[in-house]
Amino acid sequence: MLKSLFRHTVLAVAFAAASSSAYAAEEVYKLKLAETWGPNFPIFGDSVKNMVKMAEEMSNGRLQIRVDSSNKHKAPFGVFDMVKTGQYDLGHSASYYYKGKVPNTLYFTTMPFGMTAMEQHAWFQYGGGQELMDEVYAPHNLMAFPGGNTGVQMGGWFKKEINSVDDLQNLKMRIPGFAGEVLAKLGATPVNIPAGELYTSLERNTIDALEWVGPSLDLRMGFHKIAPYYYMGWHEPATELMFIANTKKMEALPADLQAILKVAMRKAAYDMYVHSYAESAKNWEIMKSEFPDVQVKTFPAEVITAIKKANDEILLEKAAEDEQAAKIIKSQQDYLKLVRVWTDISEYGYLESVAE
Amino acid sequence: MLKSLFRHTVLAVAFAAASSSAYAAEEVYKLKLAETWGPNFPIFGDSVKNMVKMAEEMSNGRLQIRVDSSNKHKAPFGVFDMVKTGQYDLGHSASYYYKGKVPNTLYFTTMPFGMTAMEQHAWFQYGGGQELMDEVYAPHNLMAFPGGNTGVQMGGWFKKEINSVDDLQNLKMRIPGFAGEVLAKLGATPVNIPAGELYTSLERNTIDALEWVGPSLDLRMGFHKIAPYYYMGWHEPATELMFIANTKKMEALPADLQAILKVAMRKAAYDMYVHSYAESAKNWEIMKSEFPDVQVKTFPAEVITAIKKANDEILLEKAAEDEQAAKIIKSQQDYLKLVRVWTDISEYGYLESVAE
Repeated sequence: MLKSLFRHTVLAVAFAAASSSAYAAEEVYKLKLAETWGPNFPIFGDSVKNMVKMAEEMSNGRLQIRVDSSNKHKAPFGVFDMVKTGQYDLGHSASYYYKGKVPNTLYFTTMPFGMTAMEQHAWFQYGGGQELMDEVYAPHNLMAFPGGNTGVQMGGWFKKEINSVDDLQNLKMRIPGFAGEVLAKLGATPVNIPAGELYTSLERNTIDALEWVGPSLDLRMGFHKIAPYYYMGWHEPATELMFIANTKKMEALPADLQAILKVAMRKAAYDMYVHSYAESAKNWEIMKSEFPDVQVKTFPAEVITAIKKANDEILLEKAAEDEQAAKIIKSQQDYLKLVRVWTDISEYGYLESVAE
Repeated sequence: MLKSLFRHTVLAVAFAAASSSAYAAEEVYKLKLAETWGPNFPIFGDSVKNMVKMAEEMSNGRLQIRVDSSNKHKAPFGVFDMVKTGQYDLGHSASYYYKGKVPNTLYFTTMPFGMTAMEQHAWFQYGGGQELMDEVYAPHNLMAFPGGNTGVQMGGWFKKEINSVDDLQNLKMRIPGFAGEVLAKLGATPVNIPAGELYTSLERNTIDALEWVGPSLDLRMGFHKIAPYYYMGWHEPATELMFIANTKKMEALPADLQAILKVAMRKAAYDMYVHSYAESAKNWEIMKSEFPDVQVKTFPAEVITAIKKANDEILLEKAAEDEQAAKIIKSQQDYLKLVRVWTDISEYGYLESVAE
């Protein structure tokens, strides 16, 4: 049907000497997207499917996006490079996975003791966050966009209780991003492992602990069967995934399809936060009723204080080493100071006043 | 340019005997939207402009939406009717403004002591909220959608302090929706007044108090010049505006334009929450530094307890009187119970752990 329309339009162009935009108006653009996640991965993968569906419907089929999951492209943490080189047009991943390659990608997912999701959205759109992310990604021929928020993540699943800072010594834990560096400073050994290998790694004691997301995704991973302690979070208050696009490929699209793609990505990202919230609430209830043996814990104040201190020291080190990092850290800290006052009066104040 | 493309397509259809969809593909659809707000109204009006711009860009100009503000159509609270009858194709307003006309519209903006914005989004998309709103609006040939959240609203500006329930007696206050009914039960006289008349009404003592939104919008209204007390909120934890569409007009659009319009409305709604959040944070800081005489107050516990009791009683009355109301109230209360547990562990727990 689309091909037939396309041929008719070509005839129209020949016959009526119309501009090339009439031609482009019915051309089908086939794009390829690489996602970090495995096939049919819940919530994260759903947000990609949501985006693709919206883009296809809004473009009347002129945008067709093939999604390759990690089982296909075999490079869950290679999404940055594959989109940069143009092997893929689009990607769905998390910025902080690429800190080993481009250190300042670290700041655009979530920061320990940092902003909540709405605070971070406000920073991103009205506090200079998007511009800073553009600065980091543009030299790599990449455009980066929000990709969906998980909300506050849980602190992770532990085989042993954490009662003191000593218990962090030599603790081998899957924990990516800045939080991993913070724990390393306190003697732990942070590693990053693709989702598909997490359960086996924990089961075989290759790692002693892991954080993944929270009840929205953790329950179906089965971690509660092999690690009894589930800690509340400090390290990822607002994990925002990202969509990335190859800049040249994006700019080669007609303006209306660029607009459709950008709006579809942004709306899918917003939708994912709502989806995460709903799944978290539902799964928390399931966990409490079906797995009553899970022990929900908070880290002792001594541990939180030590972690916060290590966190602040590393931020100072990073700011001293790199001008761009210093600028990003300052922007985030200034905005957090401004916006948290409002959060405390509004959301937090309200929740406090109605708490029973 | 668009007209010229359109003519070329008509020629193409004639020449190549294409289906009517090639014709429709370039037709321009001109829609009219009535907004409750005055011209260039900040944040609320911005969200409408944002939606219109996205729809036009994504449709390559095939969707053109004229926005009429209240100075034009003269019926700020007539948006429901004007869209229902087809005088306008689309509207931007708040559902609870129409409770006098269709009582169960009351439940789709925000409820006192109810859900926060993210909780309400989760209820709407995953807890049956959208389906219930459809049930209320469909008999009026209307489709209703989220229209942008203000976040937690402030409790309002008062000329006199509220120290006891007695101080609510005969208090004439602009406060719409369910909250107005709650205060009426305690002896106050709630009224609704269009935004443009609020300042004069308060200045001339036509009313003794008013709630509008919060620092994002209140400061430029100047209320702080004529009422010294600014109370924290209990009554509107998550005010969601709404876009409405005339169902027949919506369904007459080609499928791709329907998709574009729906996605543009939803994204504009999400964007407005972020915009509100950023403006609230910024304006709160301005207020604290430029107007240090504003006294920020919380209602005494005695008053909150009385309000909550009145609130619960009215909910019971409404549920007893109307089957649909009972179903909506039950759905909201059940979902709040489920989701608040998660909010307390995630956002609230995190904010509590990092509070200084």
